[in-house]
Formats: sequence, structure tokens, C-alpha cells
Amino acid sequence: MNATILSIGTELLFGQIVNTNAVYISKRLQIMGINVMYHYTVGDNPARVRETLEHALSLTDLVIATGGLGPTQDDLTKEIICETMGFELILHEQTHEFLIDFFKKYKREMTDNNLKQAYVPDGGTVFTNDAGTAPGFAVEKNGKTVMAMPGPPREMMIMFEEHVVPYIERMSDGFIRYKLLRMYGIGESALETDLKEFIDNQTDPTLATYAKEGEVSLRIASKRKTAEEAQDAVDSMMKKVEEIVGDFVYSEDDEDLHEVVGKNLIDLGLTIASAESCTGGLFAKRLTDIPGISEVFDRGYITYSNQAKVEELGVSEDTLEKYGAVSEETAVEMAMGTRENTGTDIGISVTGIAGPGGGTKEKPVGTAFICVSYKDENIVIKTDSRDRGREWNKNWFCLSMYNLLNKVIKENYL
Amino acid sequence: MNATILSIGTELLFGQIVNTNAVYISKRLQIMGINVMYHYTVGDNPARVRETLEHALSLTDLVIATGGLGPTQDDLTKEIICETMGFELILHEQTHEFLIDFFKKYKREMTDNNLKQAYVPDGGTVFTNDAGTAPGFAVEKNGKTVMAMPGPPREMMIMFEEHVVPYIERMSDGFIRYKLLRMYGIGESALETDLKEFIDNQTDPTLATYAKEGEVSLRIASKRKTAEEAQDAVDSMMKKVEEIVGDFVYSEDDEDLHEVVGKNLIDLGLTIASAESCTGGLFAKRLTDIPGISEVFDRGYITYSNQAKVEELGVSEDTLEKYGAVSEETAVEMAMGTRENTGTDIGISVTGIAGPGGGTKEKPVGTAFICVSYKDENIVIKTDSRDRGREWNKNWFCLSMYNLLNKVIKENYL
Repeated sequence: MNATILSIGTELLFGQIVNTNAVYISKRLQIMGINVMYHYTVGDNPARVRETLEHALSLTDLVIATGGLGPTQDDLTKEIICETMGFELILHEQTHEFLIDFFKKYKREMTDNNLKQAYVPDGGTVFTNDAGTAPGFAVEKNGKTVMAMPGPPREMMIMFEEHVVPYIERMSDGFIRYKLLRMYGIGESALETDLKEFIDNQTDPTLATYAKEGEVSLRIASKRKTAEEAQDAVDSMMKKVEEIVGDFVYSEDDEDLHEVVGKNLIDLGLTIASAESCTGGLFAKRLTDIPGISEVFDRGYITYSNQAKVEELGVSEDTLEKYGAVSEETAVEMAMGTRENTGTDIGISVTGIAGPGGGTKEKPVGTAFICVSYKDENIVIKTDSRDRGREWNKNWFCLSMYNLLNKVIKENYL
Repeated sequence: MNATILSIGTELLFGQIVNTNAVYISKRLQIMGINVMYHYTVGDNPARVRETLEHALSLTDLVIATGGLGPTQDDLTKEIICETMGFELILHEQTHEFLIDFFKKYKREMTDNNLKQAYVPDGGTVFTNDAGTAPGFAVEKNGKTVMAMPGPPREMMIMFEEHVVPYIERMSDGFIRYKLLRMYGIGESALETDLKEFIDNQTDPTLATYAKEGEVSLRIASKRKTAEEAQDAVDSMMKKVEEIVGDFVYSEDDEDLHEVVGKNLIDLGLTIASAESCTGGLFAKRLTDIPGISEVFDRGYITYSNQAKVEELGVSEDTLEKYGAVSEETAVEMAMGTRENTGTDIGISVTGIAGPGGGTKEKPVGTAFICVSYKDENIVIKTDSRDRGREWNKNWFCLSMYNLLNKVIKENYL
């Protein structure tokens, strides 16, 4: 099946917001085996919405619209879809009652405008909104299907997963299941070479690789008559894949590396403290994005100056003079000092050159040393981000820190 | 003039990348007084690119295309535009020589495919590419204009500013100049009320407000016969606006608050150290995104646990027990301790509740205390992010820190 994603909202045309809805829906439809042929974006103008919808329906069988379902006068998506597809609007009792309760609960007066949201196409399928007020819907006629969802991304995503996915599964002749493996330490082309046998002969399950800022993902998807068969096919392919490249996989559920590490730290009750130089707090920032991390994350040092490294972490001035601030030796003393100060199970450190200044021939911009101190050991690595700007470099160093930490946890604590 | 932005690339339809080009071009066109009516995205498929281009030309006078100008077989944007608009392709000597030099410089063989990039429409205007290899161009016929630029955002942005902007200025009957004022501490509706007199009577310059995660921006734009007149009109309106809401303006050049603060710290040679609890390193992360900040940023503490606050910053256990970790008193002791430890000119601290757990009735999630310690003073504020999730809260706290710091610098050091 071919589809168009139709985004409705003048704020998109003004460039005020990024169209993340189109990205989300595209990704999900692709996994479900539906070909997205066009993204169309149009403002809150009835004539142009109608023209664009008609054009999309002339080219593709499925149109998924977002936006324009709210209570204001601008919101005309529902009316235009009904006119174009030949449906009448009727009051949806369930939504009506929900709205009355909603306004009562928040002690606000419900204006007539708001009642507008309770109308749905007669003969269509209603998608209840579990994160907002405006419901979505699907209508079908003459082999064409139009679906409408609210514009706010959170409302859209929840509705997509709860209503659109099963609807499409019913429309299509099978069930799709997939896994997204996240990997670190292997390049996209090396991954494709390693999995060549599966990729070349793929019919079902299908395999697709994606590269993203120093990381690679692999999607394994299967479409079968039942959900169970599809899941089994994915699981069995995953096993084969992991036999070959399992060492690089850090998540089978599309989690970020710092999430995987953070959750393991919490689950294992492993306490940690960090000492950062060139990443300037990025490591700690990501770790503390995880709710509940305060149980294991004791503190972090951002020792930007040499003096700070000496005073806070006990790095010796000799080491700094002899080997430099960006060195294996300094990284080790930073990690050990962190652990000694705090008594945590793990100390992690990084020292490097984020650029644009500060590089030398021996230690160019993009060089960093990372040390994890645990039990009676200190493991230290050198990494090279192949300088692509300060932000890239900081991100690369941070990813390398989480990767080393992940390895230490897997090999010693799990 | 009405315009369509046509994004070409299968990776967009797969949801692999976000369409930031459409956002950038939309924003810039709007400022230049051009109405963006549609965003169309289509894959690297000749028939569909052609159909979409023709449809866009039937609806709008200007089509700006991005993507599909590279050396591979997939890249057919140029060929399709020339066919549709009735132009022939000819070898562009300047680009040809550039490509030869480019491949010589990087010691790579130039294949025939690469030569493809040196062809341009005969009778069109060539836009040289100062950040890559594929040039862009504009062609005009029968009152319709099509422009093409490469897909990589950096190449596109540089080409847009250097070539597309002057081209559009020549096409239109005037020059547009604008300023984007960034503000903190005032809401969008309050700003609109304060500037009502100018907004209601606006013809030229025009004023437009935008809200974004706790901040507001105001764009002042003018279109006049000469660039100087437009600039003068913008400057004089800016003066009037600043008389009314100048206290809230932190940048007249669309800079982020942390950039403004960081640059001032560097320019003034003011040294600083930070102590963060609930923001978990976000303050330091942003500050260290600024190249050259190592001259003034000495170190940062992320004192997540109470013990860390006591050990690292000398916060008294009495204070923690009597007032709690999230309190004015703790914030002050954290900032003072930071300065005492480091001897920096400024110490800044934050302690609060990022959520989702940890809130109480008196101190709900979203509460934080921020202190700046400088000269003989400690200034402390309480802020409330009105909890919209952990990430929002951390960002809010961090913005509040930079705002307080900005105020202290402006009032005491500038």
C-alpha cells in the first residue's frame, strides 16, 4: 500500500516548528510495510487543505493527516475530509461526555467551540485521544482510506500506537513485528559486510541498517499471518545476527546507550561518580536525565583547569607536567581520585581536546583518554573522534565513556 | 510572491532524517515577505519528482528544491527541472575546474559520475557551492522561478545566504533587513500587550513574536527600496521596542542566553565555577559548548547527594537538616563554597527538584533555588518551572541560572 502523510498547520510553513510527526509516522509505516510516497504540508486554509487532500488521494491509497482537529475556527481538517470523502458529521456521545467531565474537572467553562471536537464522521472509525481532547478517526470509501490525528506529537504518537497500528493491521493481510538493535563500535558498512548472507537473501524477515552520529542501528522486521509467527521470525533472526555481531549490540529495544547503562547501575545498585574535562558535564547531564539515578549517582566533577584536576581529584602535578593533561596517566589519576574522594563502586574520567583550539600533532583535536576505575582495576582507552567540530567531538567522547562503562558492567557485574 | 519548498530524498520519506531544510528556508522566506504555501517531500524517483514539481508550479510562482544534485545515478533533480522548464544542460567551466582541483587535492580519482555535477542549465543562474561540490541554480520562464540547492544542510544554508537571498532581492522590489531579539522573563502575551501600539499599526517594519520553551523572540523586519533604508527602519523600531521591554532582551542577534553570558565572561576575563544539583551538569555542558571558555571556566561540581554537598562545597549538615537540600540556604552555601574552593570571581549554584519523584506540597516538582555569589554579595532566587517533565524542568532551571548570571554581569561588570 502507498501512503501520503499530510501535515496541516500554518506554524509548519512559517518554520516555527519542525515536522517531527512526519518523521515518526514515516518510520512506523515503513516498518509496517507501507510505502510512504509523499509528505505534504499545508497551512490552515480550507481551499488549500482540500486541494492537497484531493491531490494526495489521486496518487496514493492511504492518506494520514495530522493537525487541525482542535476547537478553534482554524481547525477544519475533519470537515474537509468528510466533504471530500462524502461523510456526515455526527455527535460522538462518548467524546461529548468526556469533554463535559474534562471541563468540569479543570473547572473551566466549555464553550460551543469545544463541542465541535465531539463530532465524528458517521460510518467512520473513531480513535479516542488518551492524551488530549480531540479524537482522531479513519474513513474508507472506494478503496481509499483517510485517517486524521491531532497535531501535538504526544497525542499523535499515543493514538498512532493504540489505534492506527491495529487499524492498519486489520487493513493489511498480516501482522508486522520488529526489533531495533542499537550498536556501538562497528561501522555501517562493516555491519552490512558481516551480515551480507542475511541481507542479500532477505525476503522475510527484512534487515535494514541506519547510521547515526557514531552509532549504527539494525532493524529486523517480519510480516506474517499472525503476530506470534512474526515475533518468532524476528526472534530467530535476531539470534542469528547476535551470533555474528552480538558483541556490538547494547540494546535490543531502541534505547540510548546512557539509558542502558543508567538502568543497569540502578538495578545493580552500583554507585558511581564522574570526572570530566573536555565533555564539560555532558556525561553527567545524560546520566541525570534518567529518573531515579540519584540512588546511585553520587557526584560529578568538571575539572576544566589543571588546578582543578590537582585540587579536586589529587592528580599529581608531576603527571600533568610529564605526560600532559590529555594523557592516559592523567585519565587514570582522575578516575582513581574520583573513587577515592567518593567511595563509589565506580569512578569514570575523561580528558581530551574538544577543539577548535588546543590540538597538537601528537594529540590532535578529537583525541581523548577515558578511564573506568572499578574493583581493583583501572581500564583506560584512547579514542579519536576524527574531529568534526566541538559538538561532535564532545558527543563522541561521551558515547565512548558510556561504551567503556557498559563493557565493564557487562563483564564484571552482570 | 507564493512559494513551495520541494524536498527531494528517499531518506526523508523513510523518516531517517528530519527535514530541517524546509524549516530553515521557510523561516528565511517568511522574513523576506514571501508566502510559503506548501512543503512537498518526494523520494528519488524521476516520475514522482516530475509530477510533484509540475503540481507545485501550477500552484505557486516560486519553487525552491533541495536535494538530488549529487553525483550518483539517483540524483536527477537538475535533469527533471531542466526538462520541465525547457532548459538545456551545458558544462560549467568554473565548476569543472573546481572539481578537477578538488579531486587532485584529495588524491581521489574523478569518475564520470562526478563530472555530472559540473553541468548547469543554459540560461540559468549558477549558485556556486562554497561548502561542497554540487552547484545550485535558478531558472526562470513564463513568470515561474525554480531554484535548486544541495540537500546537506550546511551546503544549503551557505548557498541560501550567499546566492538565494540576493537573487530574491533582485526579483522582488526591495531589500529586507531584520533583527531577532531574544528575551527572557516575559511571556508572549505580555509582550504582545506591551507592544500593542506597534503591532496593531504595523505596516513596515513588521513585528512578530515567537514563544519557545520558556523564552520569547521578537522579529522586527523592514522591506524598503534600499538596504540602508530597511536597516534604518529596523534600528529605529528596535530603539522604540527596547524603551518598553529592553529589560527582558538578552540578545539582539538571535544568540542563545548561554552564548551571551559565555562571551561576556570571556571578554571581561571573569572567572567562574558552578555547583549543580538538579540540573546534573547541564549548566556546565552548555557553558563548555562555547569555544575558548576554558580561559574563564575553572571547574564545576555536580553535587547530587547531600554528602557531596557537604564534602565538596562545605554546606553545613545543620542547614541541610533544618532547611532541606532544596532551599535558599543550601543554594547560598553551595555558591559560596564553590567560590571559596576555587577563588573564582563568580560562583553559581542550583538545587531543586527535577522530578518525577521527590516533590512535596511545599516544594513541588519544578521548584529550584539558584544563587550567584560575586564580590561581597550572594543573590538568590526561587524559580518554579510549573512541572512539564524532567527534561523541561532541567532546561527551565538552567535558563534561570543563565538569566540570573546575565543580570549580575550586566549590573555589576559591564
